[in-house]
Amino acid sequence: MNNLDQFIADSVRTVDETLDKLIPSADTEPQRLHEAIRWSLFAGGKRFRPVLVFAVGEVFAAPQEKLLRMAAAVEMVHTYSLIHDDLPSMDNDDLRRGRETCHKKFDEATAILAGDVLETLAFVAIAEDETLSAELRIRLVAELARAAGTPGGMVAGQQFDLEAEGKSISVDELNRIHNFKTGALIAACGKAGAIIGNAGEAEVQAIANFSTELGLLFQITDDILDITQTTESLGKTAGKDISALKATYPAFYGLAETGKLAREVHARAIRNLDQIERPTNLLMEIADYILLRTS
Amino acid sequence: MNNLDQFIADSVRTVDETLDKLIPSADTEPQRLHEAIRWSLFAGGKRFRPVLVFAVGEVFAAPQEKLLRMAAAVEMVHTYSLIHDDLPSMDNDDLRRGRETCHKKFDEATAILAGDVLETLAFVAIAEDETLSAELRIRLVAELARAAGTPGGMVAGQQFDLEAEGKSISVDELNRIHNFKTGALIAACGKAGAIIGNAGEAEVQAIANFSTELGLLFQITDDILDITQTTESLGKTAGKDISALKATYPAFYGLAETGKLAREVHARAIRNLDQIERPTNLLMEIADYILLRTS
Repeated sequence: MNNLDQFIADSVRTVDETLDKLIPSADTEPQRLHEAIRWSLFAGGKRFRPVLVFAVGEVFAAPQEKLLRMAAAVEMVHTYSLIHDDLPSMDNDDLRRGRETCHKKFDEATAILAGDVLETLAFVAIAEDETLSAELRIRLVAELARAAGTPGGMVAGQQFDLEAEGKSISVDELNRIHNFKTGALIAACGKAGAIIGNAGEAEVQAIANFSTELGLLFQITDDILDITQTTESLGKTAGKDISALKATYPAFYGLAETGKLAREVHARAIRNLDQIERPTNLLMEIADYILLRTS
Repeated sequence: MNNLDQFIADSVRTVDETLDKLIPSADTEPQRLHEAIRWSLFAGGKRFRPVLVFAVGEVFAAPQEKLLRMAAAVEMVHTYSLIHDDLPSMDNDDLRRGRETCHKKFDEATAILAGDVLETLAFVAIAEDETLSAELRIRLVAELARAAGTPGGMVAGQQFDLEAEGKSISVDELNRIHNFKTGALIAACGKAGAIIGNAGEAEVQAIANFSTELGLLFQITDDILDITQTTESLGKTAGKDISALKATYPAFYGLAETGKLAREVHARAIRNLDQIERPTNLLMEIADYILLRTS
């Protein structure tokens, strides 16, 4: 394992341990609700968002214990969004993270409630984080709630995405969907790491810009992988974007030009790191990793 | 109008003005999402939860400006729960607050997202409340998130409720459903008013107990009204509990005994007010009002 692989593996293990402590056990009532949460949460996700919280925190020398609950909270919000996005009235998907989606394994009502309650558990996790001052906690709650919400946040992006299905949209509209649906939460992850590490406002903003580009890069490579990889290697239904008539970057630009776009966005992301007065190799390596990922 | 009617009317107007400021306007994009939120939120709800926040706040002499956002936040969470509870995979209801339910008026996906995002807007409202210290805000976030969540909170109660449908359950199980599904959030409303009013811990606890009983009283009278009132006067489908084979207090005890139970719960609620060192007439009047309500 190289250093980055080790960092990612450690981050995944750490956030999973934290999540396991924060989520009611599967034998706490209502059991079916907690089983459903755990089914979707502990399914071998990439944990990209917690990794980013930990990585930015490390750059700003934040003690890891102060990052744990925020890292867990962003993964809860992300997982809730996956559970709801997969529902029959949304993307109607059967497979997620290599296993049945929550509503297929349990039922639709339980899946809706599992998503709803993951959102509350994320805010409980931050609000009760005794390693952070009240000021820091309330700032993180505000960042997370805004990033997950509307206007300009994750749910707004999902609404735009649903409305765009089967329609002809512009690249600007496609960018907006992803900046809201994926980018806002990923930006909040980066910002959280910087805020917890007591970064100055200019550095927090540079990290937010870096993370937003990273989120876009993540989405572009996601679109590429949807075409080039198998369902088995992705752990979710491949070719789904095309069959659902979703607007994607390859649909606009073709595969070769989309690869070029990915490299441009990667370069734009990295450029933001010039404004950070500390070594940022770890963040550069993560950007490279996303550019080159195959699953 | 008597004093209580005036207090309620003023509270409703105040919380509606606050909600209108906090919710993105219907011409902010994504418009359909914001229209859906406003459709469900501004539909002439009773605003019982904000009224309780204001009433307890008034007992503890909290300035009203400090109560506004919390009052709006609890109404957002309550409305999100109604939108999701009405969905086809849950209670599948067409009518709420005298108009079409959110998924009937818009569509299921939009209704799910409108509920999701109301939850985030509630936390944004509190987190950005500049009239309160960070310590107070974070305590309110924690109270609200726990009350809305699991275990022991609103979503847990809804899960129990769904699982109980068509089954034979005990009165203890019925009490648990309502204590979680309705009582936890109502208790959080009372507590919030006391916390913002700088009440001592014993008084906060007495108010929490009072509010929990008030929530139960509210549910018992709701069960009675479902049988004795028309769809028109309720603004939601009357007789729904019976047709859905829901366990209710009248189903257990009959209508006359349920009326007696309501008076007992009312008396239990009031008794908690003995521990408050201030005049609590307003809270007593609210308890009377719920006992005697006809819609």
